[in-house]
Amino acid sequence: MDFEYTPKVQELQARVQRFMTDHVIPADAEWQRIAEAGGYPLAVVEPLKERAKAEGLWNMFLPGLHDDEPGTRLTNLEYAPLAEIMGRIPWASEVFNCNAPDTGNMEALHIFATPEQRRDWLMPLMNGKIRSCVAMTEPDTSSSDPTNLQTRIRREGDSYVINGRKWFITGAAHPNASVFLVMGLAEERMDNAAHDRHSIVLVPFNTPGVTIVRNIPIMGHHSPDGHCEILFRDVRVPATNLLGQEGAAFALMQARLGPGRIHHCMRTIGQCELALELMCDRAMERMTFGKHLSDYANIQDWIAESRIEIDQARLLVLRAAWAMDKYGNKAARTDVSAIKVMAGRLQTRVLDRAIQVFGAGGLTPDFPLAYLWTWGRALRFIDGPDEVHLRTVARTELKKRKDAKRT
Amino acid sequence: MDFEYTPKVQELQARVQRFMTDHVIPADAEWQRIAEAGGYPLAVVEPLKERAKAEGLWNMFLPGLHDDEPGTRLTNLEYAPLAEIMGRIPWASEVFNCNAPDTGNMEALHIFATPEQRRDWLMPLMNGKIRSCVAMTEPDTSSSDPTNLQTRIRREGDSYVINGRKWFITGAAHPNASVFLVMGLAEERMDNAAHDRHSIVLVPFNTPGVTIVRNIPIMGHHSPDGHCEILFRDVRVPATNLLGQEGAAFALMQARLGPGRIHHCMRTIGQCELALELMCDRAMERMTFGKHLSDYANIQDWIAESRIEIDQARLLVLRAAWAMDKYGNKAARTDVSAIKVMAGRLQTRVLDRAIQVFGAGGLTPDFPLAYLWTWGRALRFIDGPDEVHLRTVARTELKKRKDAKRT
Amino acid sequence: MDFEYTPKVQELQARVQRFMTDHVIPADAEWQRIAEAGGYPLAVVEPLKERAKAEGLWNMFLPGLHDDEPGTRLTNLEYAPLAEIMGRIPWASEVFNCNAPDTGNMEALHIFATPEQRRDWLMPLMNGKIRSCVAMTEPDTSSSDPTNLQTRIRREGDSYVINGRKWFITGAAHPNASVFLVMGLAEERMDNAAHDRHSIVLVPFNTPGVTIVRNIPIMGHHSPDGHCEILFRDVRVPATNLLGQEGAAFALMQARLGPGRIHHCMRTIGQCELALELMCDRAMERMTFGKHLSDYANIQDWIAESRIEIDQARLLVLRAAWAMDKYGNKAARTDVSAIKVMAGRLQTRVLDRAIQVFGAGGLTPDFPLAYLWTWGRALRFIDGPDEVHLRTVARTELKKRKDAKRT
Amino acid sequence: MDFEYTPKVQELQARVQRFMTDHVIPADAEWQRIAEAGGYPLAVVEPLKERAKAEGLWNMFLPGLHDDEPGTRLTNLEYAPLAEIMGRIPWASEVFNCNAPDTGNMEALHIFATPEQRRDWLMPLMNGKIRSCVAMTEPDTSSSDPTNLQTRIRREGDSYVINGRKWFITGAAHPNASVFLVMGLAEERMDNAAHDRHSIVLVPFNTPGVTIVRNIPIMGHHSPDGHCEILFRDVRVPATNLLGQEGAAFALMQARLGPGRIHHCMRTIGQCELALELMCDRAMERMTFGKHLSDYANIQDWIAESRIEIDQARLLVLRAAWAMDKYGNKAARTDVSAIKVMAGRLQTRVLDRAIQVFGAGGLTPDFPLAYLWTWGRALRFIDGPDEVHLRTVARTELKKRKDAKRT
Repeated sequence: MDFEYTPKVQELQARVQRFMTDHVIPADAEWQRIAEAGGYPLAVVEPLKERAKAEGLWNMFLPGLHDDEPGTRLTNLEYAPLAEIMGRIPWASEVFNCNAPDTGNMEALHIFATPEQRRDWLMPLMNGKIRSCVAMTEPDTSSSDPTNLQTRIRREGDSYVINGRKWFITGAAHPNASVFLVMGLAEERMDNAAHDRHSIVLVPFNTPGVTIVRNIPIMGHHSPDGHCEILFRDVRVPATNLLGQEGAAFALMQARLGPGRIHHCMRTIGQCELALELMCDRAMERMTFGKHLSDYANIQDWIAESRIEIDQARLLVLRAAWAMDKYGNKAARTDVSAIKVMAGRLQTRVLDRAIQVFGAGGLTPDFPLAYLWTWGRALRFIDGPDEVHLRTVARTELKKRKDAKRT
Repeated sequence: MDFEYTPKVQELQARVQRFMTDHVIPADAEWQRIAEAGGYPLAVVEPLKERAKAEGLWNMFLPGLHDDEPGTRLTNLEYAPLAEIMGRIPWASEVFNCNAPDTGNMEALHIFATPEQRRDWLMPLMNGKIRSCVAMTEPDTSSSDPTNLQTRIRREGDSYVINGRKWFITGAAHPNASVFLVMGLAEERMDNAAHDRHSIVLVPFNTPGVTIVRNIPIMGHHSPDGHCEILFRDVRVPATNLLGQEGAAFALMQARLGPGRIHHCMRTIGQCELALELMCDRAMERMTFGKHLSDYANIQDWIAESRIEIDQARLLVLRAAWAMDKYGNKAARTDVSAIKVMAGRLQTRVLDRAIQVFGAGGLTPDFPLAYLWTWGRALRFIDGPDEVHLRTVARTELKKRKDAKRT
Repeated sequence: MDFEYTPKVQELQARVQRFMTDHVIPADAEWQRIAEAGGYPLAVVEPLKERAKAEGLWNMFLPGLHDDEPGTRLTNLEYAPLAEIMGRIPWASEVFNCNAPDTGNMEALHIFATPEQRRDWLMPLMNGKIRSCVAMTEPDTSSSDPTNLQTRIRREGDSYVINGRKWFITGAAHPNASVFLVMGLAEERMDNAAHDRHSIVLVPFNTPGVTIVRNIPIMGHHSPDGHCEILFRDVRVPATNLLGQEGAAFALMQARLGPGRIHHCMRTIGQCELALELMCDRAMERMTFGKHLSDYANIQDWIAESRIEIDQARLLVLRAAWAMDKYGNKAARTDVSAIKVMAGRLQTRVLDRAIQVFGAGGLTPDFPLAYLWTWGRALRFIDGPDEVHLRTVARTELKKRKDAKRT
Repeated sequence: MDFEYTPKVQELQARVQRFMTDHVIPADAEWQRIAEAGGYPLAVVEPLKERAKAEGLWNMFLPGLHDDEPGTRLTNLEYAPLAEIMGRIPWASEVFNCNAPDTGNMEALHIFATPEQRRDWLMPLMNGKIRSCVAMTEPDTSSSDPTNLQTRIRREGDSYVINGRKWFITGAAHPNASVFLVMGLAEERMDNAAHDRHSIVLVPFNTPGVTIVRNIPIMGHHSPDGHCEILFRDVRVPATNLLGQEGAAFALMQARLGPGRIHHCMRTIGQCELALELMCDRAMERMTFGKHLSDYANIQDWIAESRIEIDQARLLVLRAAWAMDKYGNKAARTDVSAIKVMAGRLQTRVLDRAIQVFGAGGLTPDFPLAYLWTWGRALRFIDGPDEVHLRTVARTELKKRKDAKRT
């Protein structure tokens, strides 16, 4: 057992941190300005992408290796502390081609794509030329139990025809967004078991019948690349756009979700560290009744509790990353459920304290706190609500006891 | 001791509820449509105001009586349950001329205005012809300790000259907003004790030197009537615009704040009841793993805890209203601090549960939950952050014990 | 609506408080000394009972009136604030013949007893000559769902024969304990619906086959009058000892439980007030790092939060008492579930804070805090665990919504 | 970074676990029987000690090495997981000579003892022949700020004379207890800085003037080896009994406290694991309303939250142990404060849930839950109350930010 990052990781941390300090943070104000004006700040992001690619800080999230795929491949445990650093600026991951949901989509394509799909979608994604979306969540189905998803995928000759409504489709407002991974009920497999009835097909953005209904604000905050509502009406794609097997959507999703949750959680850690720093700084600047806020015992308690909770959280996420590397995504499934629950709660709790230290200013867009709180709240739903993950953790625990008593 | 509303109150509840059902709720969609398009929905509100005034549901918040002031006067205890009903629609109070901060401003003018000030400002406010703002909060001063407020009010001959920056000035984006009550440091009183150094002057919106810098979103939500940042630069008003005495701002504010906090808290209760209703309805509609959400024990716990907390909250607020009626605003000061702390915490807690029951939908503007959560979070700052009110309650308690031991 | 105690109640509060100050509190040290030595302090209690009876502070808990029953009868709302005062000393209620479970038993007998049962059991109880127990809880049955209770009551000729094991039988170690109300499955009614299968029979302590197995400590604390485990083995009593009807145990229990829960909750309020007083006093005495604990913001927060929570709690309990008086025990059933959940949580929360202010001293028997915490924890099970009461509150709330939508 | 225990640790875990399973757990009932009867179960413990020593499972807690000191020395990181296993039975650590406060005392003597002190006290302790106590805590001094400790140590010729009252002196009721490390104000150093005024002297139990006043129950639970109140009245020991230097008590204490806190925290983890196991088993056995408790979503949430919290806690403690090994006790001081706060809170939270799953049975001595809860509550004071450790963590964090901004 060893709690030190390896020299390789420490060196990468230093390089990513330097890139953030030298290039990303200085560009943040311009990014925000364009985003607030309603545009997408490609002019800011694209040159930075070129620079990151040139420096070899590119596609670091993808374990495994095909020779033709560009980028520096790291294990989950090596990549996690870099995600923490990138997480401090919400748009930074894109600069390193490490942003959700493209990371997960690249992982899925990396494993399941046909040669043509690799050529058409995976390689442009890995080169940062296009962006992609996962169209899974539906307004009328609880995400706790996605076997109820109702979008239909019907085979008609050499085509699939898709009908359904999706929402919270991250990235769909990005100007480079080009393809959806649409998950839906395979009409030919409706007699299968609940987890073997859904397929995933690749649907280009410009396919007739695809309508982006709106970009949904989350707790009042608009994302410039979008969490969109999408209507698929008689959308027809070639049968070769099927990803993997018919009815295999859940197996496929499982493959792509584990690492993505590690990334989300480590970005949360980074955002909580940022909030803690801001909270400390503000507490040392601001005075009431002749004392600095940092001299009040209640505010000291908030700072200390935040530090303790963040440190615990990071360790739990790193251990899950390590377990995933060592034992595989499936074996680490309960660990991943655990960190998912823990991270959203952590982020809302730490951010809530930071906001309270800032006073009303904490509610304004003048500081990143209101947005980061929002994102923490959303994390309690993204990739499944807390309740479904708690259920997974509990069932694993109960099963462990049942097995222990049997022996 | 009696926990039944009087017949008079029950009859008023029924009338206000009927007005809401018949006139306000049906207009809500149109109000929201105009507000989202960036306008202020005067076309919706003004006819409803005429109707409410005609029905005698007007200015109900103002205890006491001058014969010439229009409206139906109620005690705080009588008015509180009506504020609960109005609170369910964020813009409804304006229809009854019972909206913040005008209510508090009318109370202050009702007590302290000169005959000219009554004529120029109080009567138009009571008739719903204009709206008003309180310019108190400043970006660089913690609201916990407003004796640090730094805006300057300097006497020059027959004028006062005002310089300073204010923010979170509620109502300043309303098209009818006409006058600020500006609180600032009276330069001639700077040697006074900390609570006797500030004055309030009436500043018309169109006075040269007044700039509305921006309408600040709160946790991502824009209010159509605004929480604005305002710059006062060499703003000059006649000396007759002083409200009350020089250096008497805190005494004056105290008079206006108590009832306003009761109103805020009762609107919170109404909003929490609404959230609880929505949570129950959603839980009975939505299914996961073959069961309705309302059949899960954790969700039942959230519903029950919300019911218990709301009922406790309402009783505490009503008792504070009763104490204010019976013993006066000053005697009820600690009670009011107690309800202020309790209400913001309640609203974020109940809304958080409701959002979780709604799933990701709870984060969207499709339901009022995200906005209401935001408002609950803001309540933990509005009229003073939790910490200053907890301090007040603790000091009262400690003093009580000290006095008890002395005797 | 009125939050003032009536003059009648205020006068009774003063009298009970004076009795506590003059007679009970001075006797507490002696009571504790005898109890710690393992005896039951009858020598302390009996003379105080005579005095209380003489002063007319006797049996105040029993609403309704039979001319021959001794004592001063009050409504639940009138009695509740007196229970708060008595609750501050754990043994004080007995002095006024207002202690559990005798109060509930007297209520049940008052309603359901035959003339012989009145003579043999009710009158001695009302005169304070004997004490009684309810034998309901069983070790192998969750109290959440008492329809599973398994003790058997079998009719044999003119007798009932009882077999079963009970535990947490409060009062069974009291030297004057004379009779059990035993609840069990009526063997002749086993085909009835789940709530119509159990009977209650009166079993004198000295009946052959009754064994007091042990006095169970609760979280390490021994109660001198006991929470006992009792074995009933072929216990035979005359058929005339049936209380009420066969199979009517649940209806009968419901009648006795409502007011008893009000009493428990009001005693909790009294104990929380005591803890808050002690916490304030200690905080003003004790110093760390050159400051009194009462000057630290975190400790001020605990004091303020305790004050707010206690005040809310008292109001909720008083409202439940009022509802019970006005609308009957059955109508107030959900209100009573609500206060039960709220009270146990309140008591552990407030006591936990008080203990923390006391430092390690708070863990010792030198102060009442450790015992009172224990009792608060037990309250989360006594008369049903929190979970069953939360379920009741939630189901009522859901039903209310269902009914609202139907109309 | 690696989250796997080393093969050496895994092998030790297996050996300690086997010893527990084969020898300690089977003896627990007899140990409890003797303890409840008021004796100390030496007859149970001593043979097990011989066996553990023979198996080389002895003194494993002590890093560093003198050739003449018996036992197997491990690093803190190696020892911690063994403490977790031993912690499941409250008396097991003594079997391995790894019990508090002897472990800390041996560490202090190991570093600071003179050759005579080594011979007289350290070697008998390391051989398990005697036991020792730390006499630090005083009833009239908050442990938050031990510079206020008032026991006096006065030099008189070749002696020290000690006067003072101590309490919560763990182990003082053990039949083998032989020596106190008494911390007190060095009368000759009273002009020193606050942290340089206290000395530690070794005081044999049989020294005239030492009175064991009582064994204080903690939250109602008596410890058979005691948390005692001790009076030192004109207690005279040779000047050679001074441990280390005059005025150096705090430096000395710091050396002994760090590892001891790791041990406490890891035992907490073991106790929480035990509680979680019991909670799961009970939830799978017990039924209400026709379902197992383990099928209720609220109870599943408690299980899952406990699992997540325990896993986080273990990682944080192990990291602190690793930091202590790698960077020294002083550098790890804030880490140790963090785990101390975290552990007590964890233990009360997990045990509270377990108790609630057990129903009223959870309050009884029939299960270890009530005792373990008690101990968790006491942990929030042992080795300093939470508040002082939170303060330490906060101050470190604030200093880190101050330093970061300076550069």
